[in-house]
Amino acid sequence: MSDARPEPIQRLVKALRRLPGIGEKTATRLAYFLLAAPEAVAGELGQAILRLRADILLCEECFNLTARSPCEICRDSARSTRIVCVVEEPADLASIESTGGFRGRYHVLGGTIAPLDGVGPESLRVDALLSRIERGGIDEVILATNPNPEGEATALYVAERVAQYGVPVTRIGYGMPIGGDLEYVDPITVRKSLENRRSYHS
Amino acid sequence: MSDARPEPIQRLVKALRRLPGIGEKTATRLAYFLLAAPEAVAGELGQAILRLRADILLCEECFNLTARSPCEICRDSARSTRIVCVVEEPADLASIESTGGFRGRYHVLGGTIAPLDGVGPESLRVDALLSRIERGGIDEVILATNPNPEGEATALYVAERVAQYGVPVTRIGYGMPIGGDLEYVDPITVRKSLENRRSYHS
Repeated sequence: MSDARPEPIQRLVKALRRLPGIGEKTATRLAYFLLAAPEAVAGELGQAILRLRADILLCEECFNLTARSPCEICRDSARSTRIVCVVEEPADLASIESTGGFRGRYHVLGGTIAPLDGVGPESLRVDALLSRIERGGIDEVILATNPNPEGEATALYVAERVAQYGVPVTRIGYGMPIGGDLEYVDPITVRKSLENRRSYHS
Repeated sequence: MSDARPEPIQRLVKALRRLPGIGEKTATRLAYFLLAAPEAVAGELGQAILRLRADILLCEECFNLTARSPCEICRDSARSTRIVCVVEEPADLASIESTGGFRGRYHVLGGTIAPLDGVGPESLRVDALLSRIERGGIDEVILATNPNPEGEATALYVAERVAQYGVPVTRIGYGMPIGGDLEYVDPITVRKSLENRRSYHS
């Protein structure tokens, strides 16, 4: 086995292979694509990667990623400050935001409690959430952590910490994903979708 | 639908989506990964992409990609100059080279004849191949273009052009891929593997 690819290609393949879900074959294909593509394709991608971190900060209010703090959502006076949706990561916030169905504010915890990975609750931004609640004006805290063991443990922990302020705490609903198929979806989801059934004419 | 992702993330997602096989979901996942990963991961990837083109040239002899011309293979005096393997692209050369089974030289055509895409034989480096043959010292030309219509048409064209020099021209063998399964492989491959059968005790 020998590697006939020039060093700059090998270097790029090595760097691409660090990305999740990208193996040797895909990395090689991408490297040759970038070499053959118009100059701007590689140029804009390279610049976007290098400038990513320099241009992004955390919103001082909700800890969303933003180019300017407070973030656009926290600056938007048309959005309700009375309802705060708690998420694990900025990507979760972006996902909820893409639905266009939520017009309140967010709080990004920055992860989940994961004892197996040595991540305790103190590394999450729970105190900052409690400070926001303490300042008043919040009627509901929605816990939108993911429906998996870490997300559930985190939701439970946050719910207990928030309880002392007497603010209603809710959890996102569980059920069948739209477009899902009862035959293929996991049994726990099916069971949850039965438990969470609603009256058809309500 | 609204996009709550900060502009630097959106810019990176847009740049990643130009890559083959990368859609919105994968691009978003990669962008957040790069933001969270150690600085060096994004730094090395960004640099590798930006420096790729500046650091690579074509070998003046075989048109392989190389950091220095002539390329390592053409400079390697331990390799035979008497046998030339003709390939479509540098990636094909790298693939053959990774087998370690070929110790001759290469000639990279730079594509295939593709009339539907408006690519005629004049855009391939066939004249440069003929010049190499004219200079003498070549005993065999192996046509290792891909076994698809464009590759076959290109092999046929090159074979006809080389014919006038009286140098033997061969075509790579067709047959079952190792690890392949007769049940799942396409019928043309199965037929070729029967036509190309060899004596078991040869």
